[in-house]
Amino acid sequence: MSTKYYAKPLNRLIGELSRLPGIGGKTAQRLAFHILSMEDREAFGLADAIRDAKQSMKYCSICGNLTDEDPCSICRDESRDRSIICVVESPKDVIAMEKIREFRGQYHVLHGAISPMDGIGPEDINLKSLITRLQDETVQELIIATNPTIEGEATAMYIARLIKPSGIKVTRIAHGIPVGGDLEYADEVTLLKAMEGRREL
Amino acid sequence: MSTKYYAKPLNRLIGELSRLPGIGGKTAQRLAFHILSMEDREAFGLADAIRDAKQSMKYCSICGNLTDEDPCSICRDESRDRSIICVVESPKDVIAMEKIREFRGQYHVLHGAISPMDGIGPEDINLKSLITRLQDETVQELIIATNPTIEGEATAMYIARLIKPSGIKVTRIAHGIPVGGDLEYADEVTLLKAMEGRREL
Repeated sequence: MSTKYYAKPLNRLIGELSRLPGIGGKTAQRLAFHILSMEDREAFGLADAIRDAKQSMKYCSICGNLTDEDPCSICRDESRDRSIICVVESPKDVIAMEKIREFRGQYHVLHGAISPMDGIGPEDINLKSLITRLQDETVQELIIATNPTIEGEATAMYIARLIKPSGIKVTRIAHGIPVGGDLEYADEVTLLKAMEGRREL
Repeated sequence: MSTKYYAKPLNRLIGELSRLPGIGGKTAQRLAFHILSMEDREAFGLADAIRDAKQSMKYCSICGNLTDEDPCSICRDESRDRSIICVVESPKDVIAMEKIREFRGQYHVLHGAISPMDGIGPEDINLKSLITRLQDETVQELIIATNPTIEGEATAMYIARLIKPSGIKVTRIAHGIPVGGDLEYADEVTLLKAMEGRREL
């Protein structure tokens, strides 16, 4: 975006907005003009929400999930099953899991996946604290719910190999054709996974 | 968006972001998580940019354009032609015009268009100050560059009728097939305008 046509504060706002993911120059301009047209109270509300969220949100010292209180509400919840831990890549995955209202165990957020191509090894993700959590022998099953990508699969394999010798059951969530999906449009790897994971009716 | 899965500060941030135009619940969530993953300095930079822009940007008391200094840089520019005023609907249109680097006159920003359907009359747009600007007889031509919409056309007609008796030349920008555009895909109204506005070669 050319910058010479805008007054400095507007230019700075457009610049900051366009650094957000998925926000290009045109969208940033549109958002900036919208913010200027908002009531003071609304615009300052947005600015304060950014500042407050950034200041008060931190990672849970137990599971690594995003939280404003440490430990997080899931780790503090006495009614949840402490014998099962679901391992996910990101805090967003915790939300996705919680939305199905089925899983009542604990979580562990890795904040990434092993990716040798990007120079991300096992020591670069939140794995050490998982090992620590498994030491008091409360945990009986580890459900690995990393993404079905090359990195997610590699991470799942790595964790499985690391944990299995300790006798803890390590499972992987199923991959296959999404419900409501069409076989015709499924990619080959998904179809292969669906065939491999077939069950008797 | 369901709110129960998020900690309060995160929830508030998602809520504020989703009030922006074109930002749905999913995008707001993605942006919020991104903001939390940003460096403190970057996130606070965004918050400050919103606050600063909102506090320092105002409307030019002469032309009504967005500016951080009053009068705006265009109204202050002694090298620009004060005998021509280009009338536009919004500050974004000033930017669009400036980008063609052709027009060296002044602007007047209406902040809207006459729209009886929405209850917006001539007194609801920035028109009175335009009349005032025309009184010292410096201005010889008024180029009406409102949008080629029903409201924009109605506004153009209204201004033309209002100003013409004073002897000032009132012109309207041309509407027709966009350069690089295809006749086949032009809508009927555009094609009609293109035919009406034909010129001898």
